[in-house]
Amino acid sequence: MKSFIRRRRVIAALGATVTMVGFVSMSALPASAMADDLTENGGATRNDGDMTQLLRDSIVDGPAKNVILLIGDGMGDSEITIARNYAEGAAGEFAGIDALPLTGQYTTYALTDTGAPNYAPESASTASAWSTGTKTVNGRLSVDVANAPQATLLEIARANGMKTGNVSTSEIQDATPGAQVAHISARGCYGPNETSQRCASEALENGGLGSISEQMLNVRPDVTLGGGSASFEQTAKAGPWEGKTLFEQAEARGFQLVGDAASLDAVTVADADQPLLGLFTEGNFPVRWQGPAATDLTSGGSLPAAVACTENPDRLASDLSLGSLTEKAISLLDGEDGFFLQVEGASIDKQDHAANACGQIGETVDLDEAVQVALAFAQERKDTLVVVTADHAHTSQIVGSPIPGLNTHLLTADGQEMIVAYGTSAQGGSQQHTGAQVRIAGYGPGAANVVGLTDQTDLFFTAANGLALERNLASLSANATISAPAEVQPGATFSVTAAGLNADWQTDATLASEPVDLGARDVLNGTVTYEVTAPMEAGAHSVTLTGAQTGTVLTAQFAVTDAASANPTPEPLPTETGAAAAGGSSNTNNPLARTGGALPIGFFVAGLLAVTLGAHLASRRRRRTV
Amino acid sequence: MKSFIRRRRVIAALGATVTMVGFVSMSALPASAMADDLTENGGATRNDGDMTQLLRDSIVDGPAKNVILLIGDGMGDSEITIARNYAEGAAGEFAGIDALPLTGQYTTYALTDTGAPNYAPESASTASAWSTGTKTVNGRLSVDVANAPQATLLEIARANGMKTGNVSTSEIQDATPGAQVAHISARGCYGPNETSQRCASEALENGGLGSISEQMLNVRPDVTLGGGSASFEQTAKAGPWEGKTLFEQAEARGFQLVGDAASLDAVTVADADQPLLGLFTEGNFPVRWQGPAATDLTSGGSLPAAVACTENPDRLASDLSLGSLTEKAISLLDGEDGFFLQVEGASIDKQDHAANACGQIGETVDLDEAVQVALAFAQERKDTLVVVTADHAHTSQIVGSPIPGLNTHLLTADGQEMIVAYGTSAQGGSQQHTGAQVRIAGYGPGAANVVGLTDQTDLFFTAANGLALERNLASLSANATISAPAEVQPGATFSVTAAGLNADWQTDATLASEPVDLGARDVLNGTVTYEVTAPMEAGAHSVTLTGAQTGTVLTAQFAVTDAASANPTPEPLPTETGAAAAGGSSNTNNPLARTGGALPIGFFVAGLLAVTLGAHLASRRRRRTV
Repeated sequence: MKSFIRRRRVIAALGATVTMVGFVSMSALPASAMADDLTENGGATRNDGDMTQLLRDSIVDGPAKNVILLIGDGMGDSEITIARNYAEGAAGEFAGIDALPLTGQYTTYALTDTGAPNYAPESASTASAWSTGTKTVNGRLSVDVANAPQATLLEIARANGMKTGNVSTSEIQDATPGAQVAHISARGCYGPNETSQRCASEALENGGLGSISEQMLNVRPDVTLGGGSASFEQTAKAGPWEGKTLFEQAEARGFQLVGDAASLDAVTVADADQPLLGLFTEGNFPVRWQGPAATDLTSGGSLPAAVACTENPDRLASDLSLGSLTEKAISLLDGEDGFFLQVEGASIDKQDHAANACGQIGETVDLDEAVQVALAFAQERKDTLVVVTADHAHTSQIVGSPIPGLNTHLLTADGQEMIVAYGTSAQGGSQQHTGAQVRIAGYGPGAANVVGLTDQTDLFFTAANGLALERNLASLSANATISAPAEVQPGATFSVTAAGLNADWQTDATLASEPVDLGARDVLNGTVTYEVTAPMEAGAHSVTLTGAQTGTVLTAQFAVTDAASANPTPEPLPTETGAAAAGGSSNTNNPLARTGGALPIGFFVAGLLAVTLGAHLASRRRRRTV
Repeated sequence: MKSFIRRRRVIAALGATVTMVGFVSMSALPASAMADDLTENGGATRNDGDMTQLLRDSIVDGPAKNVILLIGDGMGDSEITIARNYAEGAAGEFAGIDALPLTGQYTTYALTDTGAPNYAPESASTASAWSTGTKTVNGRLSVDVANAPQATLLEIARANGMKTGNVSTSEIQDATPGAQVAHISARGCYGPNETSQRCASEALENGGLGSISEQMLNVRPDVTLGGGSASFEQTAKAGPWEGKTLFEQAEARGFQLVGDAASLDAVTVADADQPLLGLFTEGNFPVRWQGPAATDLTSGGSLPAAVACTENPDRLASDLSLGSLTEKAISLLDGEDGFFLQVEGASIDKQDHAANACGQIGETVDLDEAVQVALAFAQERKDTLVVVTADHAHTSQIVGSPIPGLNTHLLTADGQEMIVAYGTSAQGGSQQHTGAQVRIAGYGPGAANVVGLTDQTDLFFTAANGLALERNLASLSANATISAPAEVQPGATFSVTAAGLNADWQTDATLASEPVDLGARDVLNGTVTYEVTAPMEAGAHSVTLTGAQTGTVLTAQFAVTDAASANPTPEPLPTETGAAAAGGSSNTNNPLARTGGALPIGFFVAGLLAVTLGAHLASRRRRRTV
C-alpha cells in the first residue's frame, strides 16, 4: 500500500483485493465528520510529512499490462468538491477518486467543423478526444472534423490482442461508451431507426457503418455492461440480419445476453467467442440518490432549510452498481492477454444538467466505488494503469449565499449547510457544460503522463503508449495468412481459413471465378473460416477475403480437378495483397464488410515509441515490433 | 531547461535569466493562433512523447534556499482556462503558469467560528491558511478561530534569518499580502482609523497589535511593493509614533519609501536596516486590460458581438507591472541568507467579482509574467521552490450559449468567440467566490508536495519544511544574549545590547531599580541596543529586555560605583530567563512591545522534520538544529 496511499486518512478498504464481494453500503446520509481538530495548526493538512520519496515511488515506467480508464461525466473540480463536502466532509477524501498519487489538469475544448477551437465541449467530442487522440466537433463520435473514422483505444487494444471492456451507468450507446465502439457524425444515432432518420448516409441501408448499437456488435468488446436495451429491440434495415432485432443479431453472433444481476453473476467467461452484453435498463440507470429540486430564486424568495439527500428507491440492486459492474468486468477480462477497460459514471453530468445536486453527488459517490475497485486491483497487480478524469466541467458551484438562479441547500457530512448553485440556464432548461480545464489523476505504469498541463487527446497516447500498443492497425493485419486445399473436386465443400487478421472485425469474401459473394463473417481472434462450394469447372480458381476494417486483401488459390488430391490438408498460402491494399476497394455490397474507408493509421510519435518501448514488448501480445 | 520545460510549445523567454529587463509587451489583442493543425491525430496533444523520466527529473529533494509563492487571487481552473483561451488560444499555454511540472489540487474551505467547515471561503481565511498552516474564519488574518495569532511564513522565514518580500497589485494591506504580516480579526482594518472603528480591541490605543499597516511596519519585511499608500497617510493613535503619519513612522524607522518607477529603480539595497516600502497607488493597481461590461440577459435579450479586450490607459508603467516588481524584489532579496517572497496577482478576483472578463484575463496574463520571472530565476539557480496557486475559485464560467445572467462575448487569440458567464449575483452585485478545489503547481526542491490532493494548509508546511525552517519561534530567541558594562558611574550613559533575538521584531526594556521604561526598539538582525542613563544610587541594578513577539526576557546586571571600572567594555551575560518566560507578562504600557500573547510555537511534524531534514541544515541560516 505504500506506493500511492499517501494520505493521512487511509481507507482500509483500499487494501482489499478485487475478490471482495460488494461494498460497505453507503447511506445517502452523510458520513460522520472527521475526527481531526480542524482548528489546530496543521489540523487540516492532508499530507503526512514530506511526500517527495512517495511521489518518486509512485512513478512507474510502462508498459502496463492493463489499463482501466474511469470517467466521471461532467465531473469538474467543482463537482468533485461538492460531492466530497457532502459525502465525506470538506476535510474528508474519497477513498478512490482522491487517492490517485499523480495528478494534473487537462484541456477539453472541441473543434468547429472548420477545425478551430470550440470552448464549450460536450461528451461526444470529448470522449472522441481521449478515445482516438483526434479532436472533433461536438456531437460526433470518433470521427474527425472531416467525418473520417478514427481508431479508438478499445479497437486498437483489441487489434493488439488484448481483451476489452466498456461499462457505463448510461445507455451503452451514449457518448462516452459509444465513442470507444462507433464512428458516426451524430451521437444520437443509437439504433437503426434513429440512424435512418438522423444519420441517413451512415445507415446500413445506405452503405454506411450503421448505428452505434450495430457498430458495437461489430467491434465485439469482450464485456459491455450498462443500460440502453431499448435500442436493441430495433430491427436491422439491411445487412445479414436485416429484419432481425439487434438482440436476435447479437445472439446469432455469439453474444451472451444478460439483463439482470443473477444472470450476470452466472457468467464466468467472456471472450471473442462469447462476448458479454449486459443491458440492465432500457435507458440510463436510475440514479443512486435523490433530493429536493433546486429552488429558483431568480425573482427573489428565500432558500429552503438545508436537508440531506435520500436513497432513490428505484436504484438498481447493489450488485449492479458501477462498482460491482467494474469488479465483474475486471474479473472477466483479467488474464494473460491484458485488457483495456473503460468505466463511466454517466449521470454526474445528466443530473448536473437537471440541477439535481443530490443526483450528481450520489453518482460521484458511485463512481468513487468503481475507482476503489480499480485501484484495489491495480495495487495488487502492480501492472495496471488506472486513470480517473472527466470529459468536461459543468455548471454546479458552491457559493456562500443564494444566487439569482437555481439553488439547492444541503446538510453535509460535517453537519454544515452547503449551497449548490446552478446558474447557466433558467429553471426547466438544461444547465450547461462549462469549458474549464479538469482534473486528471493516475496510478501505475505510465501514469506520470497525466501530471502537469495536458490535453484530453494526450490521454489517448498515455493509454496507447502505456500499453505499448501498435496503433498502425493495417500493420496488425499485414501478416495475415489464408489457407485452402490445393485441389478440390468439382462441387465439393471445403474450408478457406484466414488467420492473423488482427485488426479486422469482419471479412467479406468472394469466389472470384463465378463470382459468388460468400458473405460477411465475424473475425474471432484474428481468424475467420468460410465453407466454400467448389466450382464445377476444372482449373485454377481463387477465393478473395477482404478485411472490413483495414482493407487487407487475402487470396487463396485452389485447383478444381476431377482427381482430387489425396491430401486435402489446407496449405497456408502467402498473402497476395497485404496492408497496402486500398481500403474497401474490393468490397462487395455485403454491408457487414463495408468500411467507409479504412481506419487511419496511427503514426504519432511512432519513432519515439519504437525507441523507448521497443525493449519492453511482450511476445504474448501482438504489439509493435519495429 | 530540460528539467521542467516539458511541453511542445516551449516559450523561449523562459530560458532567459532574471537579469532580463522588461518583457515583450503583450498586447491586449490576442496572440496569433497556434500553428499546429488541431484537426490531426495527435495535433492537439501537449506532451511530446513519454514524460515519465522528465517527471522524475523534476522531483528534487529539499531543502530549498529560496521560496517564491505566486498567488492568483480567485484564479480557479475556470479563470485560468478563460485567460488561456483568450490570450494564448485553447491549444496554447502560459509560459509561466502552465509550465510548472508538478501539479495537484487543494481544498480551500474556511472554518466557522466554532471550527466547522465553511464551504465558501474568501481571501483572508485562505491566505491565512497557507501563511500559517491554521484554518480560520472568513475575514480574519493569521489568527485562529479563537483569534490567537498564528506565525506566518514571512515571519518564520525572517526569524530564521532569511530575507523576506511581499508584492501585490492590490493595496498591500489587502487580505493576501496582509496575511503574511498581520494578525487581526477583520481584514478591513488597514490603518489606525479603520482599526479604531472596526477592530477596536486590536487598536494600539487599546493595547492591541494595531492596524495591518502598523503591524507590517513592525514585521519589517525587507521588500514590500504594492498599492495602498492611502492608509499610510493616517496618523498613529498611540505608541511611540502617536500623532505621526504611518509614512513618517516608516521613515523614522528606517524604511526606504518609494512611490514611482524611477525611485524604485534607484534602490539597490533592501535589508533590515533599510527595508524597502514601495507604494505606487493610493488603492489597488489599475488593471491591465479593459473591455465591455457584461450584458445582463436575465430578462432576455441577445448577446452583443464578440470583441477583443483593450489596454487600460490608466495602467501603471510597465516597469511597475507585477512581473517587473517581482524581478526587482528578487534582485533585492537574492543573497546568501536565502529569501521568502510572496507575489500576488490580486485583481483576477476583484474583476471576477465585478463580472469584468477582460479585467480578470489581463490580470491573469500579468501574473503569468511574474511566474515567468520566478521560473527563470529558479531554473538558473536550481535551489528555489516556486509554487503557483490560487486562494479560492470564483464565478466566471465558459459556456456555449448565453446564461440568464451576465455574459461577456469575447473574440480570442484563436479568432473564435467565447462566452464568459457570471451567474452568482445579479447585475450590480458582487459575483461570489466559489468553493471548488483549485490548482496548485510547483517547481524546484520540495515541489513534490503539491502533487495529489492536498489542503491549502499543506502549503504552509510545504514551504516551511521546504526551507527547513525552525517553526518554534521562541526557540529562535532562546539563545539570545544581553551585554552591559559590569560597572558604571552614577548618571553615566551606557549601552545595553541584546543579540540573537531572532524571532522578535521589537523589544521593550525597563531599568528595574527605578523603574524606568526605556521604551520600544526595533530589533534588526536579532540585535537591539538601548542607551541607558545609570541610576544615581550606588549598588546592583539591572535592565530587563522583553522580546515583543516571543516574550523572551533578558536581564543585564550592572553595578553603579563611584569608582567606575577602568574597562567599560560590555561583557556578554547569560540570559536569566529564556524562552520559557510567559509571553508579554513583563510588558509595560509601551504599545510597540505589546504582543497580545506570544505567537504559538510550531510543532507539527517537528519530529519527522528533524529526521528527514536534519542532515541538510545550512549553518549560514538559523534553522532547526535538533
